[in-house]
Amino acid sequence: MSKKPIRVTVWHEHVHEKTNKTVAEIYPDGMHAEMKAAIEEYLGEDVVVRTALLEEAEHGLTDEVLAETDVMTWWGHCAHDQVDDAIVEKVHKRVLEGMGLVVLHSGHYAKIFKKLMGTSCSLRWREAAEKERLWCVDGGHPIADGLEGEFFELPETEMYGEYFDIPTPEETVFISWFEGGEIFRSCCTWTRGKGKVVYFRPGHETFPIYYNKDVRRVLANSVKYVAPRSSAPVRVFDAPCIAEPLEEIKGDHEVDQSLHEH
Amino acid sequence: MSKKPIRVTVWHEHVHEKTNKTVAEIYPDGMHAEMKAAIEEYLGEDVVVRTALLEEAEHGLTDEVLAETDVMTWWGHCAHDQVDDAIVEKVHKRVLEGMGLVVLHSGHYAKIFKKLMGTSCSLRWREAAEKERLWCVDGGHPIADGLEGEFFELPETEMYGEYFDIPTPEETVFISWFEGGEIFRSCCTWTRGKGKVVYFRPGHETFPIYYNKDVRRVLANSVKYVAPRSSAPVRVFDAPCIAEPLEEIKGDHEVDQSLHEH
Amino acid sequence: MSKKPIRVTVWHEHVHEKTNKTVAEIYPDGMHAEMKAAIEEYLGEDVVVRTALLEEAEHGLTDEVLAETDVMTWWGHCAHDQVDDAIVEKVHKRVLEGMGLVVLHSGHYAKIFKKLMGTSCSLRWREAAEKERLWCVDGGHPIADGLEGEFFELPETEMYGEYFDIPTPEETVFISWFEGGEIFRSCCTWTRGKGKVVYFRPGHETFPIYYNKDVRRVLANSVKYVAPRSSAPVRVFDAPCIAEPLEEIKGDHEVDQSLHEH
Amino acid sequence: MSKKPIRVTVWHEHVHEKTNKTVAEIYPDGMHAEMKAAIEEYLGEDVVVRTALLEEAEHGLTDEVLAETDVMTWWGHCAHDQVDDAIVEKVHKRVLEGMGLVVLHSGHYAKIFKKLMGTSCSLRWREAAEKERLWCVDGGHPIADGLEGEFFELPETEMYGEYFDIPTPEETVFISWFEGGEIFRSCCTWTRGKGKVVYFRPGHETFPIYYNKDVRRVLANSVKYVAPRSSAPVRVFDAPCIAEPLEEIKGDHEVDQSLHEH
Repeated sequence: MSKKPIRVTVWHEHVHEKTNKTVAEIYPDGMHAEMKAAIEEYLGEDVVVRTALLEEAEHGLTDEVLAETDVMTWWGHCAHDQVDDAIVEKVHKRVLEGMGLVVLHSGHYAKIFKKLMGTSCSLRWREAAEKERLWCVDGGHPIADGLEGEFFELPETEMYGEYFDIPTPEETVFISWFEGGEIFRSCCTWTRGKGKVVYFRPGHETFPIYYNKDVRRVLANSVKYVAPRSSAPVRVFDAPCIAEPLEEIKGDHEVDQSLHEH
Repeated sequence: MSKKPIRVTVWHEHVHEKTNKTVAEIYPDGMHAEMKAAIEEYLGEDVVVRTALLEEAEHGLTDEVLAETDVMTWWGHCAHDQVDDAIVEKVHKRVLEGMGLVVLHSGHYAKIFKKLMGTSCSLRWREAAEKERLWCVDGGHPIADGLEGEFFELPETEMYGEYFDIPTPEETVFISWFEGGEIFRSCCTWTRGKGKVVYFRPGHETFPIYYNKDVRRVLANSVKYVAPRSSAPVRVFDAPCIAEPLEEIKGDHEVDQSLHEH
Repeated sequence: MSKKPIRVTVWHEHVHEKTNKTVAEIYPDGMHAEMKAAIEEYLGEDVVVRTALLEEAEHGLTDEVLAETDVMTWWGHCAHDQVDDAIVEKVHKRVLEGMGLVVLHSGHYAKIFKKLMGTSCSLRWREAAEKERLWCVDGGHPIADGLEGEFFELPETEMYGEYFDIPTPEETVFISWFEGGEIFRSCCTWTRGKGKVVYFRPGHETFPIYYNKDVRRVLANSVKYVAPRSSAPVRVFDAPCIAEPLEEIKGDHEVDQSLHEH
Repeated sequence: MSKKPIRVTVWHEHVHEKTNKTVAEIYPDGMHAEMKAAIEEYLGEDVVVRTALLEEAEHGLTDEVLAETDVMTWWGHCAHDQVDDAIVEKVHKRVLEGMGLVVLHSGHYAKIFKKLMGTSCSLRWREAAEKERLWCVDGGHPIADGLEGEFFELPETEMYGEYFDIPTPEETVFISWFEGGEIFRSCCTWTRGKGKVVYFRPGHETFPIYYNKDVRRVLANSVKYVAPRSSAPVRVFDAPCIAEPLEEIKGDHEVDQSLHEH
């Protein structure tokens, strides 16, 4: 793995900022600007970050951008349906090829996340400006690196509660306690093809979540964690016929290959 | 969980039997008939088995049949594309609700399997009538129950080799050794919503695989393993707003709920 | 798997009942009597339950009892160190052979649990008679079968909080919310050899936890879940030399076997 | 995470070299010298490597050495029993604190590996100088980084076969095909406390395994992979009483704390 910077694309729906005064005041330059700033703050010269928005041509995810992206972060909420299926297919393919993906907050219902998980990705929720405390349950995980305590808190947040319909996570890094009585698996990871996927819960648009230093750190750590980690030439897509065996096969078999067109 | 029989639907593509003489001779009543017989042989009064075919109306998977199915087995190969997307959606929903699914052999490329896995499900293959030896690597697993040895063999089989592009299995029960030099994770399990999914590799249509006693046993064990195991009322689909918290939330927050339409 | 009853041994330290008035009043016949009653209440004729106590000869775990035990439950707290290492070895061997083990509450620090986990099994705790709410995060799991809601509550309980130093659980069935601000992975499972291990958190001795109907049900479900599930002849202990290969090995190798005494 | 070099300690039993002519000829400076060279070859300035031997005082693992070790590799075979239990306890503690551990070949029966796994770690074996082909089943994993093919081969090797009695691996990177008919999970990872553990199979002493370029690369990659990844202050050992809750607990409970001496 080279020491070249990780090429990050912060993808953002960018709708609420244009329609809701509260959100516009919190993020005058858009949430994507603050997410970009957070990643740069912690990873510095180890990253080169660009942004891409739903409103742009091809949602900002042209073939060229995708080819040059090592890690993508994804925030969406009210416009999941407006994301073109063809773009989702391309992003999915890039993940299997090794591109890391960090899905944030209401992105749990994004087409790309549901496609990668294979489940409904539903959950329960409440917007009551309640307190959330995120407990680290895997202190050795690089996503937790640099945290100063065994938990961190958000004073006012939207609640997401279980049952969160996701496949059994390979790793669970944080579990949230909510003032109103729920718990939630707030930071989980999965492998899909050569790619790593992280889901990280915080990020509600009407609270200044992406200004919180611990959220910023975890976001940056997640980006670093899912960056491509191997150049090994494993085939993810094609189903090749390996007609010539590696070892001699005994017997004298006549095989009808006509059926096979995988 | 009641002691009522497990209601099994053996789904079969049923194309090769009609177009290939070898397959027709091996399975004069169709592969589905032999799979049904195998499940009944080992599970007896614990199951009620029906079959459903691609060629039938709604592929034999009407709402009524789906509602009455506890476990579905799936064999397909050359006609994956002919399976209606709307039916795939319904089967997917039933898995998340708790229906077990056993995907067989070339079903690795079935729409329903790819949708549940979130990956390409590709693999390498070769048809050279070579020997396969399936080693049990989880001897305590119920899918291995009743096997007499630490492995079982198929004298002539199609080869499937790694890399098999599946999410990290939660459980791996068998790993195959192939005469031609490959290995393969041949029996794996995953959880999706309330449902369990098993992939079991053997089943190539031009060899009499479903007459092999160990394959029959593993098929039956898999059906039993993925049968619904819990009546707990966990919500898998909707994303309900729980406006009334379970615990009192301090402070006096005015919350703008207008944004939320999960 | 036969339809013979599951043979359960409820192992109990049985010290607090003799030294603490509160505990003695809650459990006049000992906690083991109530745990036995709970298992019998839900599993009826599917189980035969006996008890074994620290104070008995060989802690009640003679070779004969061990050989006749399919599932063991384990409760201990202040006398972990008094459990004979030789008995721990025997219990450990039985788990690898396929005996199920359900470790309860303060049993997290039992020698047998630490030996099976390979970690410190430490956690944080507080005794403040606070409320606990156990959320089901795997509704399809048989351990959750029969629960009427998406969570259940204990009005007064000891708190156990993260970080709980256990290996990544294979399955997590419940996560607890505590009134005082912590969360905890309260019901987890692991595979060790042919055996299944469950840890279930509730069970503090100064509250009437084992009279709670949901706790009783989960205890019984756990016993059923870890019962032996396979008769497959996998070798767990010896490291046999397989001098005669299954397949012909080419070449003419002189091999010095003198080094090998695995 | 700092950019300081990873401090590696290559631990070696170092007995066969002194008692067996074949081994002495292959490794005139001891296997540890060649393992050290391999790690340095691939990781260069990213590591500082020292060696420690069974024959040294405290097996070379003084408190000072342990405190200064980020990653330890472990090779042992005929002298597992001569490793002092007190040293094993110290190494175990360091793993839970975050030290990475790479266990090699016959180290599967080392005290430290069995203690971390909680199982017997037994397997089947044969020494017949047969061919082994290691297939990569997780091409995105950093342990596979830099490999040129989808598999690599060892022309002559000792066979290790399943059932390998280990807990379900969190990650499986390679699975071996053996000429004599067996398969084996040859490279697996687990988390224990804050530490990562890798088991990597190749390394038989009478073949020049550690001169193979792919084995060397995987060894170096494994060292890099298990290096400490987080400074988060999670408590692994003590079980602290958190008498002061983070949130107010309602009611007026008199709690008898006298029982608690975790």
